[in-house]
Amino acid sequence: MNSPAALRQIITYDTQPDHYCHWNLACDGAIATLTLNINEDAGIKPGYKLKLNSYDLGVDMELHDALQRVRFEHPEVRSVVVTSGKDRIFCSGANIFMLGLSTHAWKVNFCKFTNETRNGIEDSSRYSGLKFLAACNGTTAGGGYELALACDEIILVDDRSSAVSLPEVPLLGVLPGTGGLTRVTDKRRVRRDHADIFCTLTEGIRAQRAKEWRLIDDFAKPQVFAEKVKQRATELAAQSDRPADAKGIALTPLKRVTDAAGYHYETVDVAIDRAARRATLTVKAPTAAVQSDIAQIVAAGANWWPLQMARELDDAILMLRTNDLEVGTWVLKTSGDAAHVLAADAVLDQQRKHWFVRETIGMLRRTLARLDVTSRTLIALVERGSCFAGTMAELLFAADRGYMLALPDAAAEEGRVTLSAMNFGDYPMVNGRYRLAARFYEEDAPLAAARAAIGKPLDAAAALELGLVTATPDDLDWDDEIRIVFEERASLSPDALTGMEANLRFGPGETMETRVFGRLSAWQNWIFIRPNAVGEGGALKVFGSGNKAKFNWERV
Amino acid sequence: MNSPAALRQIITYDTQPDHYCHWNLACDGAIATLTLNINEDAGIKPGYKLKLNSYDLGVDMELHDALQRVRFEHPEVRSVVVTSGKDRIFCSGANIFMLGLSTHAWKVNFCKFTNETRNGIEDSSRYSGLKFLAACNGTTAGGGYELALACDEIILVDDRSSAVSLPEVPLLGVLPGTGGLTRVTDKRRVRRDHADIFCTLTEGIRAQRAKEWRLIDDFAKPQVFAEKVKQRATELAAQSDRPADAKGIALTPLKRVTDAAGYHYETVDVAIDRAARRATLTVKAPTAAVQSDIAQIVAAGANWWPLQMARELDDAILMLRTNDLEVGTWVLKTSGDAAHVLAADAVLDQQRKHWFVRETIGMLRRTLARLDVTSRTLIALVERGSCFAGTMAELLFAADRGYMLALPDAAAEEGRVTLSAMNFGDYPMVNGRYRLAARFYEEDAPLAAARAAIGKPLDAAAALELGLVTATPDDLDWDDEIRIVFEERASLSPDALTGMEANLRFGPGETMETRVFGRLSAWQNWIFIRPNAVGEGGALKVFGSGNKAKFNWERV
Repeated sequence: MNSPAALRQIITYDTQPDHYCHWNLACDGAIATLTLNINEDAGIKPGYKLKLNSYDLGVDMELHDALQRVRFEHPEVRSVVVTSGKDRIFCSGANIFMLGLSTHAWKVNFCKFTNETRNGIEDSSRYSGLKFLAACNGTTAGGGYELALACDEIILVDDRSSAVSLPEVPLLGVLPGTGGLTRVTDKRRVRRDHADIFCTLTEGIRAQRAKEWRLIDDFAKPQVFAEKVKQRATELAAQSDRPADAKGIALTPLKRVTDAAGYHYETVDVAIDRAARRATLTVKAPTAAVQSDIAQIVAAGANWWPLQMARELDDAILMLRTNDLEVGTWVLKTSGDAAHVLAADAVLDQQRKHWFVRETIGMLRRTLARLDVTSRTLIALVERGSCFAGTMAELLFAADRGYMLALPDAAAEEGRVTLSAMNFGDYPMVNGRYRLAARFYEEDAPLAAARAAIGKPLDAAAALELGLVTATPDDLDWDDEIRIVFEERASLSPDALTGMEANLRFGPGETMETRVFGRLSAWQNWIFIRPNAVGEGGALKVFGSGNKAKFNWERV
Repeated sequence: MNSPAALRQIITYDTQPDHYCHWNLACDGAIATLTLNINEDAGIKPGYKLKLNSYDLGVDMELHDALQRVRFEHPEVRSVVVTSGKDRIFCSGANIFMLGLSTHAWKVNFCKFTNETRNGIEDSSRYSGLKFLAACNGTTAGGGYELALACDEIILVDDRSSAVSLPEVPLLGVLPGTGGLTRVTDKRRVRRDHADIFCTLTEGIRAQRAKEWRLIDDFAKPQVFAEKVKQRATELAAQSDRPADAKGIALTPLKRVTDAAGYHYETVDVAIDRAARRATLTVKAPTAAVQSDIAQIVAAGANWWPLQMARELDDAILMLRTNDLEVGTWVLKTSGDAAHVLAADAVLDQQRKHWFVRETIGMLRRTLARLDVTSRTLIALVERGSCFAGTMAELLFAADRGYMLALPDAAAEEGRVTLSAMNFGDYPMVNGRYRLAARFYEEDAPLAAARAAIGKPLDAAAALELGLVTATPDDLDWDDEIRIVFEERASLSPDALTGMEANLRFGPGETMETRVFGRLSAWQNWIFIRPNAVGEGGALKVFGSGNKAKFNWERV
C-alpha cells in the first residue's frame, strides 16, 4: 500500500457483474436486460451524489463490462434491452455536479470513454448480430437519451410526463457531447430545424411528437409498455445470427501487476519513464502455436492468445489514458515469434464464422480503434526481436510514425515486418477504412504491392519501399535518431499535438463515429474550457446553485 | 465622424486594385499574376509589423478582392499565378505578433475569412475554369504554404534554401489552421507519417523531398523558375473554358450606408437591435423584371440584380461578423415580388453557360455558403410581403429555423414560399449537398414532393406539409411566439450555440471544406483558448521574446 502506484490513487476498469453498484445484467434466453439502477452514494470520486439515475465514469465502466459479458459469456443473447430500475426516470445523463468538479482532462477523457462504449454498442449491432433496444420507462435526458440513441431502436413510455431531451445547451451551456448531436442527425435523421428546437428545449419532447420527429421509434402506455418492449426485443432477436445453444466463455479477471515501473500483463507490458513523459508498450507474440480447432479455442477461452492480448492491450490503453496524463508519448514495441502470430491470424481468418472467433476479432477491432483515437503520440519501433506481423503489425500502422532498424543482411531476420490477410480489412478504424487503405488513400498501386507481400518477411529496405515504415536508420544512427525523435516530441505543446494527430490520423472519409470524435468532441472540448461554461459564473459551475449563468455575449 | 458607427471603429472589406497595399494584380492575356509584396507598416490594426511577407486580415481582404476582380473583370484570364514580389520569401503566413495581440474572437473570425477565401480559390477552379498555380519563389511557411495548398499546383524554387513548412505546432503551439492539416491529407494525400514529420519540423522540407512526399508538384532552379512557371501556367490555361474575347464587368464600389441603425444597401438592409443582440437582414426582390438577354445582362453588370444582391448580402454578412460580435441572432427576411425573383432564376438557369451568369451563380453560391458557416443563430421569418422564392428561399433553408405566418385564405398570397429549379442543386453547401437535399437527408419522397411543387406559391399549410418551414403560427400567436423564440435564443450560451449549430447544420456527408471548418477549426479554436497557447507562458505569447513556452504537460 505504500507503493507509489497506490499513492497515486490509480483508477482501474476492473469489475464483474457481482460487483456492480449501478447496473444489473439479466439474461433470459435470447434476450438480455441491462437495468440501470444507480446507487447515488457510489460515485467513483467524492463530492457528488448520482441522483436521478445520473452517471459518472464508474457507472460507465460497469456498462462497458456488462457489454463484454454479453458478447463473450452469453452467446445465446441476441437482443439487449436497456432500461431503468427506477420509477419514472430512465436516465438523466452525466452527473452535472461531477462535471462541475472535474478537471478539463477528466471531462474530456470521461466523454471519450463513454463515446467508445456507445460506439461499441453499435459495433456489436453491425458485426455481431446483437441488437439493442432502449426501453425508456421514464424521463430520458441528456446522456440518458444519448445512450438510447446508441441503441438500434428506442421505445418511450407514454405516461403524459416522460420525455426525451437534450437539455445541455439551455441548462448547462455545453453540448450533448456523447454523440447526441451527431446521432440526432446522422442516425435518426431528425430534420435540422426540429433538432434545433429539440436541443434548446429544457423539458424535452413527449411520445407522440418525439415519434413524428424521429427522435424515438415507438411509444406505449405504461400498462402495455413491458409487453411491447418484450415483443420488439423478440423481433429484434429473430434478426440475429448468434448461436442458440453455445456455451459462453468466462471473462476471467485480468492478471495485471501495477508497480512504480508501470503495468504488467502476460502478453503486454507497459514501462513508464515519468521523467521523459514516455511509456513503452510491448506486445508479446504467443509463445507457442495458438489453439486452432474450435473445441481447443473455446476451451482456452479467455486465455486464447488473440483474446487475452486484446483484453490486456485494451486495459493498458485505458489505464494509461486515465492515470498517466503527462505521459505524452507511447512507444509501441512487439516481441516474439512472428510465425506464431501469423498462425494465429490464419486461425482467426479460417474460423471467423464461429461466434467466439468473431467476437475475438471484434475485441481486437475495438481495441485498435481505441488506440487510434487516443490523444497520445504513438511511435512504433521495429528492432531486433520485434514481431510486427499480421494483427500485431496493426500497431505499426496505428502509429504516427514507425522506425525500423536497418540490419546487415546476416542479422536481418532478427527484425522483420510481415503482413497477413488480416491487415486488409478486418480491423477498420472508426472512419470505416482499414489502416493500410487509409495510409495509402485507397490508391491501388501501393495497396496491391502490400497485398503481394502477404506472408513475406520484409527487411527494412523492403518495408520502406512498400511505405510501411517512416524511416530505417542503421545500427550506427538508431540510438541518436530515436532519442532526437523522443526529445523533439516531448518538447511540443500537448494541445497542439492532440489537435494535429486527430487531424492527420483521420484523413478523408468521415463516418458518424469520426464525426462524434472529430467535429462534436472538438467543439465540446472548446466549450468545456470557455469561461461561459467553466468560468466562475459559467453555466456548468452555477448549475444547481440557483444563480443564473453570466455569459460573455460575443459570438466567436 | 461623430456617428456611433465611426466611434465603433468599423472595419470594412472595401478595396480595389489601385488601393492595394500588399498585392498586385497583373493580367497578361490568359494568365493573371497575383504578386504578394506586403507593406510591413500597413497592418490593419496597430501594434505589429508585417515582416517577411506575413499577413493579417487586411492583406487577405485584398486577396479576396483581387479574386473577385479576376472572376468578373477579367473573363479572359484562365490561369492565375500566385507569387511573391520579395526576394527569397514567398510568404511566411499569418503574422504571429498580430495573433498574439488579438482576442480569441478576432483570431477565430480571421481564420474563418481566410479559410473562405482559400475555399473560394478551389471553388473557382472547380466551377469556373480558373486554375491556380502557386509559384513559390522562396520560403513558403505556415499560412504561406496553406495559400499554396489552395492552388491547383505548387512549384517551389530549388535554390538550396527555400522550403515549404508548417511550423505552427513546433513554433507556436497551435495548428496550421487555415486548412493546412486537412489539405495535406485530403488534397495532397501526403502519407500520414510523412505529414507528421512535416508538421513538426520548424525548418520545413526542400524541393526534392517535398516533391517525393507530394508536398509540391514540381520544382525548378532559380534561373529557369520563371520560365517553368510560365510554361505550366500556360498549360493550365489551356484546360480552361473561359472566353478568350469577352469584356469584363466592372465591380463598382458597393453603395453601403452605415448608421447607428445598421448597414443599408439597395437590395439588402441590416437593422441592428443592440439591446436585443439581434439583427434583421432583409433581402429585397428586384423591383422590375431583371435583364434576360446576354447583352442587357452584361450591360447591367454589377447592377444586375442577382449579382448586386449577392455582393451586398456577402458584404452585410462580413460586416456583421466582423463588427457586431454580440449580435447573436440574425433574422432573415425578404420582401418584394416573387415573380421577379422567379423570372431572375429562370434567366440564371437558361443563361448559365455564359461566363458572367456562371460567375454570378458562383457568387451566390459562395455567399450562401458563407452564411451556412456563420456562427450566429439564423431565424427566417415568412410574413406578409415576404418573398422567399427560388434563390431567395435559400435563405429560409440556410436558417436554423423558419417560421411562417399562417394567413387566412383571403390574405394568403401576401406571404408565400415558392421553389424554383435553382433550389435543387445550384447552391451546394460546403458539404457538397444542396440545402434541400441536406435538409431531407437525400431521401427520395420529400425531395420529390418538393420538386413537384416548383413554381407553385405555397401557403403556410403547404409549406409545413412539405417540411420547408418549422412552424406556422397564425396572426393571433405570431408576435408572442416569435418574441419567445428570440428571447429564449438570446438567453443561451453563445459558445454552446456555436457548437450546436455547427453540428446540426452539417449533417452526414463531409468534404474537405467541412473538415476544415468542422474538425480542423474546432480543434484550432480549442487550442487557441488553452493556456499552452495563449496563457502568460503560452507558445503564442512568448514567440519572439526569446523565452521558451511553459506547458502544462497533461494530454487531454
